[in-house]
Amino acid sequence: MDSSNKKIFLYDTTLRDGTQSEDVNFTVIDKLRIAERLIEFGIDCIEGGWPGSNPRDMEFFNALKKSKSVCIDKISAFGSTRRAKKTCENDEIIQALLDADVPNITIFGKTWDLHVREALKISLDENIEIIYDTVRYLKSKVDRVYYDAEHFFDGYNANPEYALKTLLAARDAGADCVILCETNGGAMPDKVAEIVSIVKNRLNDYPFGIHAHNDCEMAVANSIMAVKGGASHVQGTINGYGERCGNANLCSIIPNLQLKYGYDCVTSDNLTKLKSLSDFLDEIGNLKHNTHRPYVGKSAFAHKGGVHVSAILKNSKTYEHIAPELVGNTQRVLLSDLSGKSNLIYKAKEFGLDIESQSDTIQKVLLQLKELENRGFQYEGAEASFELLIRRAMNTLPEFFDILSYRVIDEKNKSLSVAPMAEATVRVAVNGEVEHTAAGGNGPVNALDKAIRKALVYFYPQLKDMVLVDYKVRILSSHNGTQATTRVLVVSQDSFSTWSTVGVAENIIDASYHALLDSIIYKLLKDKK
Amino acid sequence: MDSSNKKIFLYDTTLRDGTQSEDVNFTVIDKLRIAERLIEFGIDCIEGGWPGSNPRDMEFFNALKKSKSVCIDKISAFGSTRRAKKTCENDEIIQALLDADVPNITIFGKTWDLHVREALKISLDENIEIIYDTVRYLKSKVDRVYYDAEHFFDGYNANPEYALKTLLAARDAGADCVILCETNGGAMPDKVAEIVSIVKNRLNDYPFGIHAHNDCEMAVANSIMAVKGGASHVQGTINGYGERCGNANLCSIIPNLQLKYGYDCVTSDNLTKLKSLSDFLDEIGNLKHNTHRPYVGKSAFAHKGGVHVSAILKNSKTYEHIAPELVGNTQRVLLSDLSGKSNLIYKAKEFGLDIESQSDTIQKVLLQLKELENRGFQYEGAEASFELLIRRAMNTLPEFFDILSYRVIDEKNKSLSVAPMAEATVRVAVNGEVEHTAAGGNGPVNALDKAIRKALVYFYPQLKDMVLVDYKVRILSSHNGTQATTRVLVVSQDSFSTWSTVGVAENIIDASYHALLDSIIYKLLKDKK
Repeated sequence: MDSSNKKIFLYDTTLRDGTQSEDVNFTVIDKLRIAERLIEFGIDCIEGGWPGSNPRDMEFFNALKKSKSVCIDKISAFGSTRRAKKTCENDEIIQALLDADVPNITIFGKTWDLHVREALKISLDENIEIIYDTVRYLKSKVDRVYYDAEHFFDGYNANPEYALKTLLAARDAGADCVILCETNGGAMPDKVAEIVSIVKNRLNDYPFGIHAHNDCEMAVANSIMAVKGGASHVQGTINGYGERCGNANLCSIIPNLQLKYGYDCVTSDNLTKLKSLSDFLDEIGNLKHNTHRPYVGKSAFAHKGGVHVSAILKNSKTYEHIAPELVGNTQRVLLSDLSGKSNLIYKAKEFGLDIESQSDTIQKVLLQLKELENRGFQYEGAEASFELLIRRAMNTLPEFFDILSYRVIDEKNKSLSVAPMAEATVRVAVNGEVEHTAAGGNGPVNALDKAIRKALVYFYPQLKDMVLVDYKVRILSSHNGTQATTRVLVVSQDSFSTWSTVGVAENIIDASYHALLDSIIYKLLKDKK
Repeated sequence: MDSSNKKIFLYDTTLRDGTQSEDVNFTVIDKLRIAERLIEFGIDCIEGGWPGSNPRDMEFFNALKKSKSVCIDKISAFGSTRRAKKTCENDEIIQALLDADVPNITIFGKTWDLHVREALKISLDENIEIIYDTVRYLKSKVDRVYYDAEHFFDGYNANPEYALKTLLAARDAGADCVILCETNGGAMPDKVAEIVSIVKNRLNDYPFGIHAHNDCEMAVANSIMAVKGGASHVQGTINGYGERCGNANLCSIIPNLQLKYGYDCVTSDNLTKLKSLSDFLDEIGNLKHNTHRPYVGKSAFAHKGGVHVSAILKNSKTYEHIAPELVGNTQRVLLSDLSGKSNLIYKAKEFGLDIESQSDTIQKVLLQLKELENRGFQYEGAEASFELLIRRAMNTLPEFFDILSYRVIDEKNKSLSVAPMAEATVRVAVNGEVEHTAAGGNGPVNALDKAIRKALVYFYPQLKDMVLVDYKVRILSSHNGTQATTRVLVVSQDSFSTWSTVGVAENIIDASYHALLDSIIYKLLKDKK
């Protein structure tokens, strides 16, 4: 660790470049909520959008004026340099930036001679003039102007002197910071370091920044190399959202800079909110959580191997590069074939169960676990089923109901030319009272699920509040073809929490049945507590 | 580009370290299929598993001996150095490595003094002896021994001289390569480069390798920095599968080394199969494709922004760091009508079909494909279904049979206390003759499969020679719980070949039905040819 303590200016473009991602779309309300969270977390500047490029972005800036919860001083409007045949005063694109009415403007200009000639179709000198002119004009109107040098590294490789000239034009016109953009994401970190050291020199220690893309899985490394080379401003997005392979991921850059090099990014207290910020963005964006994401992923500190687990219980430094709590994450010990006594006690404690004193029960559970895992059970993704397993062994699980029988029929008839029909019937007993009912569904499992709930809601109305949010099927020993063992994982939710259960059987319907049952029992148990 | 042309030894650990990932599980048949593909792609050595650590890994090595399709010379068995109080001859763990009966063995040993003292609880000197002794013993028994120096970088930071001594012990004992493992994934690329340069010197240019983890989003950068510093052996996994945040991703490392620096990894022709290899692993592992993955993701060359799109149409270099075709990917702006068409013609040729001259049929297939893919079909792992699709469009597929109707009943009755029973009935017509039959099975799909075959064997006795060897279920839109769309992949085999088919439907039985039918039709077609 260098402990340099140098302050890094964090510039977030989740709301602009992040939304260029194929699967990311935010509403205006989403954007306001995100901006608020980002500022709270300690981001220094937030690129809100490109006013004038589409109606929604302008809507955001309008909403911002009315919002009391977002500090406008931290928001930037993004756009391009003025067009060739216009002045700043009569270019609507430039004027739209001013209409956004925020104290920061970020404009990008062309660095790469190829682009100047082929995209803008103007002379190299004219492009320099445009950059100078636009920055100077905007700087006379707002507090801060950031200049994004698009394609800086490719431009530098093609024509180094010209690329540097564009930066100097922006600097001389009064830009508060010039940002080297690795737009196509194709540069390697050693090359980035080399070019950055030249830039630093030529800029004469003027503040500069980095904006990187992940097309070679190098966005984080390139950003860090630039900072090591003197950049004080870093652009990126939360979770690395962005076009193609994404932008540089601030959720990795920030802890790397702060914990590995000692730079000053956010307060240590805010750093412990990193995981929650990352989860929040996934939630708002309705994106699947990438469990393997560095620092913030659910698996980032999860240990499966038995060798690792026993070592980690002795000293967590042995297989963890940082204490997960520093970024608001937690250590997870996975229950797998290799699990032993210490894993079990650790898990039971998490559920609030004291199993440590009951050594017979421990032995019983361990034996059961071994047998169940041999049959294909896996409790890694099904903690609720695991809790039920322990409670059953400890005799602390009430019998809520008894399913006496079920039957599922699935039928297809070509002459009727309709989708196959599924129907399920069940008989359930609760305290001696029997309910016999039926339901249809678009598949056998769906029909069975509906029939069981229908029967049970009669006794337990609170089951209405429970929904299935995920259903996964895994075939285990697949060398037997359709005879293979099936593992089903079910994720359920009510207004208060989310839980997962597992079922294993040769028969997919039976496996689903067991996972569904555990899920319902867990819900009833939870409500009782 | 350096154009150094230096050959890099590619070492894949997808089958061993990759399976430490929370969500990755392969069957023995999966592992054999993967090994075959990896060798075909040009991987130099494949770590097959840790024999002795669990029964499944040993099963793989046993299956390998019988397999004709996997070249055993490229497979390595993984394990640890001998235990402190044993000799190599009487340590079952070491003997299990030899039982695996492959010409390569990779063993890991301790580098970090903390681990030697706290985990092994032996003296630092004794650990050196163990390393030397184990490598020398194994080298006398098999062709090649690779030595993984676990926690090398952390160990070096704690005690540089000791860390180097462990490497020298392995080298002096005859290891073919010593590998610097960045086990905890916490090192930064500048630090890796610095340490690697010292190691290179001290090893006196002896071959060394790198094995990195992605806990700081630096695994690819660290691997590249090590190669730039002289490493000639790179370990990683396909798609970066692995524990916690994953291992170094070979799908990024290989094109980076080859296309950005000019190293020699695989032939250019094999490099164009990178995307298909990545997709294959996701399919086999039943994992969701990460669309933003560098080089191989579906979005890696997808352009959304209007500015980008118009520029890219003029010159693709403007927003693409490489030509996507180099890694078998495609640009996704022009809605790949062109590349779609050429892919289709290419595939049809592989099946021995001349579709090139029939431009109407090409249009028809492309439209169908688009619609089917929207519905969730994926032909990457189901070439037989793809061939049938083309043949149907070309009207060259005979109608072998017609399934008039089916019904599946699945029943469980607690008072009978037996496993749920499944029974299927089908009515099949062949040339006007109707066969109506029934069969039981241990699940609804198995029962249906048996009933259909039973009915058809009457007309086509050759179906007796066909077996289902793999059956995979994938839930696609999981936000609807048990109502989700289901994709089923079936792998079948006869005495001559193996083929895969796919079926998609809301109803899992219906999806399985379509995949089973395609599989039978393909068998009948194949026998006719």
